[in-house]
Amino acid sequence: MHFLTAQYNGKIFVGLTDESQQYVIDLHQTEKVKDGVQTLPHTLMECIALGDYFMDKAAALRDWVLTHREAPSFFYKMEEVTLLAPIPRPAKNVLCVGKNYKDHVLEMGSEGDIPEHIMIFTKAPTSVIGDGDDILLHEGLTSQLDYEGELAVVIGKRGMGIKEEEAYDYVFGYTIINDITARDMQARHKQFFLGKSLDASCPMGPVIVHKSAIEDPHNLEISTLVNGEVRQHARTDLMIFSIPEMIATLSKGMTLEPGDIIATGTPAGVGKGFNPPRFLKRGDVVEVIVEGIGKLTNKVN
Amino acid sequence: MHFLTAQYNGKIFVGLTDESQQYVIDLHQTEKVKDGVQTLPHTLMECIALGDYFMDKAAALRDWVLTHREAPSFFYKMEEVTLLAPIPRPAKNVLCVGKNYKDHVLEMGSEGDIPEHIMIFTKAPTSVIGDGDDILLHEGLTSQLDYEGELAVVIGKRGMGIKEEEAYDYVFGYTIINDITARDMQARHKQFFLGKSLDASCPMGPVIVHKSAIEDPHNLEISTLVNGEVRQHARTDLMIFSIPEMIATLSKGMTLEPGDIIATGTPAGVGKGFNPPRFLKRGDVVEVIVEGIGKLTNKVN
Repeated sequence: MHFLTAQYNGKIFVGLTDESQQYVIDLHQTEKVKDGVQTLPHTLMECIALGDYFMDKAAALRDWVLTHREAPSFFYKMEEVTLLAPIPRPAKNVLCVGKNYKDHVLEMGSEGDIPEHIMIFTKAPTSVIGDGDDILLHEGLTSQLDYEGELAVVIGKRGMGIKEEEAYDYVFGYTIINDITARDMQARHKQFFLGKSLDASCPMGPVIVHKSAIEDPHNLEISTLVNGEVRQHARTDLMIFSIPEMIATLSKGMTLEPGDIIATGTPAGVGKGFNPPRFLKRGDVVEVIVEGIGKLTNKVN
Repeated sequence: MHFLTAQYNGKIFVGLTDESQQYVIDLHQTEKVKDGVQTLPHTLMECIALGDYFMDKAAALRDWVLTHREAPSFFYKMEEVTLLAPIPRPAKNVLCVGKNYKDHVLEMGSEGDIPEHIMIFTKAPTSVIGDGDDILLHEGLTSQLDYEGELAVVIGKRGMGIKEEEAYDYVFGYTIINDITARDMQARHKQFFLGKSLDASCPMGPVIVHKSAIEDPHNLEISTLVNGEVRQHARTDLMIFSIPEMIATLSKGMTLEPGDIIATGTPAGVGKGFNPPRFLKRGDVVEVIVEGIGKLTNKVN
């Protein structure tokens, strides 16, 4: 199942689609029509925290809709709704793994920069935007705005001291993040946070795909295109630290919670890696495509 | 006014005290008894977001209580309540300024490490604990747990592109943070986040003092004691980057929100600065005292 957050007629709802991403089921409205009540919480983050109850409910509502398609009040075409980020307001900063693809480390520096230990920084929740929203250029503050296409993991279950071999039990699903970065600020302020946390610098979505639909998150093609030109193209098996290693390392002393988002790092091909660098300009369209998840498209403004 | 979050008889409430910190007014219960309704939100963070409405309401409830002290249901002695952090669950990571006192930079490195630009890192919201709660030792994960006493600023108003000269308009008040740090993790993972975000590594409180009660936040004495021995002792005029500079720099491209917390950096005297280093051990009692705010006490366990 592919989960999303969308707006229709001014109302924000938790929605469901499939890999075709052609239609959207409004889960709140469907539950009201089918059961006469709304037990599902208002946000996808709260739904995820319900665990199996939410998955069972979503499957039951989907199955019911497939036999009641004539009813128009809970079933929309994708183009009729406005997508938000699947988790428009995370309850904490987005967790990001730095320098997690060898070729990206090399384009940014040298062999000596390949990390021995996972490097984690964060992006402010205020930076999150959805598919189709504008990435802000922040002229006057940065002249080196750059893209970083990434696979992101969404945590489904609270945990601490999680072992690598049980890490996937704590995953809800996967989404796409474009970790927009102001390279000049990143360098100037040493710690990455400020250069990674500009408003509208964290496009996320379009959907969260449940883990059951992704056979192996380390066997996915990932690409980033700027104005249709392929800039990043890699497979997720090239990550230095695997998703189970990330979850185990993060949770050693810090509790992970449902709705936590871990951006797993970006492959080679960022704008700063070119000679001369190719930073983002007003009007550029950036697409991040991850196999099995979809395409995240944003224009720079 | 001194604001706090506390628990009495199993119920968590937003409370008010004064500089004596001898008594606590339960603002929720007082409003119910006085007005027959509860308009104040459940958390201090939500109250802060109400701006002047909250301040006017709190002052009116306090004035009413001072003439109705005989009523026992909304007025407690401090020792009758359990304090939580004033903002027990921030809506994003705690913002922290690194290397903001020259003598601390020198004890950790050399003149060359004095930052030209503000350095910002974050602590996970899951790390926050209150006055009297235990700092966790995380044995097996770190052997270099260290204290960092800090003045913290609490934002009162949403803002972006805030000018230095108007920065204090966006401040609600001040509290104390002990920025507990695993030095070995901080070094191992390069970016500071992981070594700064262990569960129970962000003691906060005991209260948030409204800005009207602090004449000059850059003229306060700050001390950290371990088992009664003074380890850090400085004045807040020694900060390299001032509070207005922090607010202006942070908000240049990132929206600040009510309830955001900025820890302003720690002076010299941390455990790692001693030769040999003096890291925290089980049973140690750490007190951070900031003039005009109070004393934040936590035991290591």
